Order: sequence, then C-alpha cells, then structure tokens
Amino acid sequence: VQELQLSLEQIEKGGYEHFMLKEIHEQPEAIRDTYRGRLLANEGIIRMAGIDDNIEKFTQADKITIVACGTSWHAGLVAEYIFEDLARIPVEVEYASEFRYRNPVITNKDVVIAISQSGETADTLAAIKLAKQNGAFVFGVCNVVGSSIARETHAGAYTHAGPEIGVASTKAFTTQITVLTLIALKLAKVKGNMSNSDFHHHLQELELIPEKIEKALKADAHIQIVAKQYKDAKNSLYLGRGYNFPVALEGALKLKEISYIHAEGYPAAEMKHGPIALIDEQMPVYVIAVNNPHYGKVVSNIEEIKSRSGKIIGIVTEGDEEVKELADHVIEVPNTLESLTPLLTTIPLQLLSYHIAVMLDRNVDQPRNLAKSVTVE
Amino acid sequence: VQELQLSLEQIEKGGYEHFMLKEIHEQPEAIRDTYRGRLLANEGIIRMAGIDDNIEKFTQADKITIVACGTSWHAGLVAEYIFEDLARIPVEVEYASEFRYRNPVITNKDVVIAISQSGETADTLAAIKLAKQNGAFVFGVCNVVGSSIARETHAGAYTHAGPEIGVASTKAFTTQITVLTLIALKLAKVKGNMSNSDFHHHLQELELIPEKIEKALKADAHIQIVAKQYKDAKNSLYLGRGYNFPVALEGALKLKEISYIHAEGYPAAEMKHGPIALIDEQMPVYVIAVNNPHYGKVVSNIEEIKSRSGKIIGIVTEGDEEVKELADHVIEVPNTLESLTPLLTTIPLQLLSYHIAVMLDRNVDQPRNLAKSVTVE
Repeated sequence: VQELQLSLEQIEKGGYEHFMLKEIHEQPEAIRDTYRGRLLANEGIIRMAGIDDNIEKFTQADKITIVACGTSWHAGLVAEYIFEDLARIPVEVEYASEFRYRNPVITNKDVVIAISQSGETADTLAAIKLAKQNGAFVFGVCNVVGSSIARETHAGAYTHAGPEIGVASTKAFTTQITVLTLIALKLAKVKGNMSNSDFHHHLQELELIPEKIEKALKADAHIQIVAKQYKDAKNSLYLGRGYNFPVALEGALKLKEISYIHAEGYPAAEMKHGPIALIDEQMPVYVIAVNNPHYGKVVSNIEEIKSRSGKIIGIVTEGDEEVKELADHVIEVPNTLESLTPLLTTIPLQLLSYHIAVMLDRNVDQPRNLAKSVTVE
Repeated sequence: VQELQLSLEQIEKGGYEHFMLKEIHEQPEAIRDTYRGRLLANEGIIRMAGIDDNIEKFTQADKITIVACGTSWHAGLVAEYIFEDLARIPVEVEYASEFRYRNPVITNKDVVIAISQSGETADTLAAIKLAKQNGAFVFGVCNVVGSSIARETHAGAYTHAGPEIGVASTKAFTTQITVLTLIALKLAKVKGNMSNSDFHHHLQELELIPEKIEKALKADAHIQIVAKQYKDAKNSLYLGRGYNFPVALEGALKLKEISYIHAEGYPAAEMKHGPIALIDEQMPVYVIAVNNPHYGKVVSNIEEIKSRSGKIIGIVTEGDEEVKELADHVIEVPNTLESLTPLLTTIPLQLLSYHIAVMLDRNVDQPRNLAKSVTVE
C-alpha cells in the first residue's frame, strides 16, 4: 500500500520532485485559467459577475478594507497599490487576526475584501463575520470552490489556480493578484479614472503575463547557481519599493517557510531607518529593481548596501545594465507595466527559496510547524 | 582639547554609560514634560492649541493618514489603534517613502499626521508636501522646535522629550505616543465617543504612566540577566497583539539597530502563517502578554512556541501567573489601561536591547551604518 501511495503521489507531481515546484511551473496556466472568460482583451471588456452585480457597492464605497493572513495578506498589499493607483479608492490592508479583535471603524459604506486560498482560514472567517455585523459588503477571493469563506461572503471571485498542495503558497498568490488586478482595472474603467487606450493596454499586457512567466521560469538553472551560493546564509533581507514592496515581503516569507532561514522584507527606503545596521559581508540582500519610476532610488539603495559589503542579488528587467554593474548576481524578468510587475518578480524569488530549501534538505512540501490552511486561531 | 570634550560628554551623560541608557531613564520626566499643561486630569480637560484651533478638521475628516519612518512609523501604528478604538476615525499608517512615490488617494477632506523626532526626515518632509498639494490638512508631531517639518505643517504638537542623542530612538518614541494619545482622547471626547467617567479614567491613568515607567525601570538588574542569556542568539522574534503589535516591531527594531542581531516583529497570530517554521531551541521569542482581552490568545501562542522548543521571554503584567508557568523568563510591567500599555511594555524591550548591545561590545550610541536623522532619501 505504501508503495502504491508513493507512486500515486509521483504521478500527481507530474514529473516534478515536489508539489511546490510543480505549482510554481503551473502559474502560467493557472493565471490563464483565472482570467479566462473574464479578461476579453480584444473586446476591451472585463466580465466578472460578482463585480458586475455589485458595481455600486464598489464605486460608492468610502474605502475598501482587505483582510487576510500570510501570503494572502501580501496579495492584499499588492492590491492596495493597484486599487489606489488605478481605481482611486482608499484601501487599507489588515491582518485578519488583528482586525477581528479590535473595534475597527467599518460601516455600511465600506467594502471588505477577504482573501484566502483555502477559504477556511479561521481568522479571516471571523473577520468576515465582524464586517458583516457592521453592515459592510463583503467580497471573497478564494481558491477552493464552496469553501466556508465563499459561502459566508456576499459575493466573490474564485481564483482558478487548481489544487495547491505545497504548504508554501505560490500559484495561489499570483492568481489572487490576477483576480484583484482584474477588479481594480474594471473599477478604474467604470469610475472613469482610466482612458480607453490605457485600459486596453493594461488588458493586453495582463494577457501576456503567462507567457512572460514562462520566460521568467527559464532562468531556473541560473537561479540554482545563485541559490547554491547563498543557501548557508543565516539571514537574508528582501527589499522592494512600491508595487514590489509586498513582493519583497512574500519573497522573505517563502524563504522562511521552507528553508527556515530568517529572512525579512522591507520597503527599500526604510533600510536606512534601522535594518542597514544588519548589513555586512554575511548578509545576502535580494533587491527588486525592475524598470519603473523608483529604479534610480533603488539603485541608490543598492549602492549603500554595496558600500557596507552586503551581497546583492538583483531582480531586474531584461537588458538591465546599471544594477548588473553593481550587484553580485542579477536575475532577469521580462518587461511589463509597473502594476503587473509583481506577477513576474515573484517567480524568481519562489524558485530561489525552493532551491535553497532542497539544497538544505528541507521538507519542501510540508515544512516543520506549518499547516496548509490555518483553520484554528 | 580631547580630554575636555570627553569629560563634557561624560557630564552630558549624567552618570550613565551611554546616552541611550540616560534617555531610557529620562522617559518618566520626558512624558511628564510632554503632557504638562496639556493634560489637566483633575479638571478633566486636554488642552492642545494645535488641536483646539483645528478641531473640525479632525472631527470631520474622512480619514487620518499617518506618515513616518522607522521608530516614528511604529508610534504611528500605536496611534492607529488608539484613534480607531477611541475616536472612531479610520486611520491608515504609511511609510513616508512609499506614500510620497505613489499616487495616494488624499483630498481636502483628509488629515495627514506627520511624525518625526528630528523634524528633518527627508521622506516625511516630501510626504507632507505631497499631502499639502492634494489639499489635506497636515499636522506635525516633532521633537525639535523650529524644525523643517514643524514649519511645513499647518499645525502641530511638539513632544517635549528634550534632546535625543542616541541614534536608537527611545524617549522620542514614548513621547510621540503620549502626544498621539492626548489627541485621540481629546477627539474621542469631542466626538462624544467616550463617557465623562471613561475619559477621566483615561486621563488619570495617563498621568500615572511616568511613575509606572519608573517602576518598570527597576527591573533593570533582572533584565541584564535575561540579556546575558540571549545575547549570542543569531535571531530573535518579537510577538504582540493589538496595541502591542507595534511594540513588538519596535522591540525588534531596537535590537537590530544596536546589537546587529536580526530580530523581527510579528502580530502574534500571524506566526502560524509562516514564521513558526523558524522556531527551534536556538530561537528566543519575546512575547508581549499583558493583561488585556487577547491575553488568552497570546498564551496559546506561547504554548505553540514552547511545543517547538523556542525560548520564551514574556513581557507580562505584575502578578501574572499563567505565562510565568510557561515562559523561560518573564519581565513584569505595572498594570494600566490597555490603550496605555505600549508606554510600559516598550521599556523592558529598550533595556534588553541596550544590555545585549553593551555585552556584545557594540557602539550603542552610534551604531554602524545608521544616522540619527535621515535627511537624505
């Protein structure tokens, strides 16, 4: 029986050594599945029943509060940038566990978005109940169909990531961002904050993300070389700005979860307010420095790290030259619109954590102390 | 000349080995100086010209956005809990560096509070300018009289902490919280969200904080024993919930800044979503577990840490028994109202970081790579 189970598991892994690696590689398809039928790039339409049927709740909301835990909380932070930047609605992102035990200022003019892969996260479920009691309209973003959160919310949109088995979330994260991006774009359009041409451009670029992820995944062999170099580090820092600040947090969380290396994410400019004291020649610093308006600022941060002898691994846009000059290693991702960069910059950080954990002989799919979904407080 | 300077510095340090230690011990007096003339506990009045003259800006604000960096950002997070809980105004806390480079949703119905000890923090100053361009009413909380931020804001309230020389901020933090608490209490009263008796009770308890800090400081010898035990840890976690979640972040930042130990703060309930994978017998976990409605939940977190062999140092209320049973060490602080606990729980974490840094022979007052005020981006 044991042998059969193992071989079944091997079949389920589809030739990959671990579920996590399989799920990392499934992201192009998972994102296509998530936007299929919703993103009609040629027609210039986003069609989402849960939004269409409740559009005024969103356009007239005083604010949107996003509640989530762990990786889903990071997806919420990315969404905050997208919603505020494109749809011009104030967004606050809260840890569900904190939200539920304080007395949050939530009324019937609020929209609350709850994000959870499993749809069973206990703290998020409790936050939803509190938000409903206060009269808010609650929208769910879950992966598991028919889950408790899907049932408890007023409306919602599923991610179509397919089953995620690895405890460290990968494709759930990028499909959550995909759904939230679709919502933000739709609201931006409806609210008149985005020109037709800009809207079309965003839809077209979003449609191209899966093939750009495929391209990013091709850096795998190079990423393994980088992983080998930093697998024995006792600590790591992850830095990003703007849309890529939450990606830095998520990159650090991945490394923590499966390699047990203490990694921490920071908004790059906060480094000077404390974390820079940690930097010496032992400290790898992963810096997301893709093409965007902050690029020059991030390059300055990289120079500061270098002058303190930190090791720099840059996540850069294809063809980058400036960071390549300064960094110890760079990993390239394809170019895209700034608001979509998190969907690409996340990929090499997932692979890095994966390879480091494998090299350290960790139980990648079931890391110690962690459960796939946290259904108790 | 050299000798004279040294002895001058020694005089300035008032018998303490370092400015930081002096400033930690100055907190009772600094807080008294900060509330003097403003907090009239017997009369049941809070008098602050900057608020009184602009009271409608605050009571009619759509939301309050707090912009700050580093330790001041942590004071802002504490303020978020106080403002939302007591004054029922939605608050968002932003890293000034992030706020200034995105396109935040800020209008003339917003109040922006900028917090900075020096009043010269470049990112915070730039955030203020952006907020003013968008029509917001901008209120400053600074320590240095006549500083750029004091001049650039529409109104403000000084902390009266006196000069802070140690690069790691201590008395600036607790006096910032004091000012923000006074504002929140005043608004709560004006908005009718707080009964007279509850308001009086808060004023009386706030007035008692300095002597309770004096009591908390008396744990110093015990804290040195704890410091000795964990000074060689390569990593540390700091956990708290509610009002004390930001204190956990601040505790971790202090340790990072002056000991160069990689410490990270987390809301206690998020531990299960990732950081718990880091916990083994090498990992000291500082847990703030004072008397409040979350106490039982935090005790559960402590049990989880213990079952993974983590070392637990509890910051508890005087007379605590439950955590004492479970933890490797406890450090007591006096009892107070939940909203005022950050002013007490911060103290032992400051002392711990200080003693660990001294034992590691670090340059406590001028840690490597850090500047007292970050006047460049």
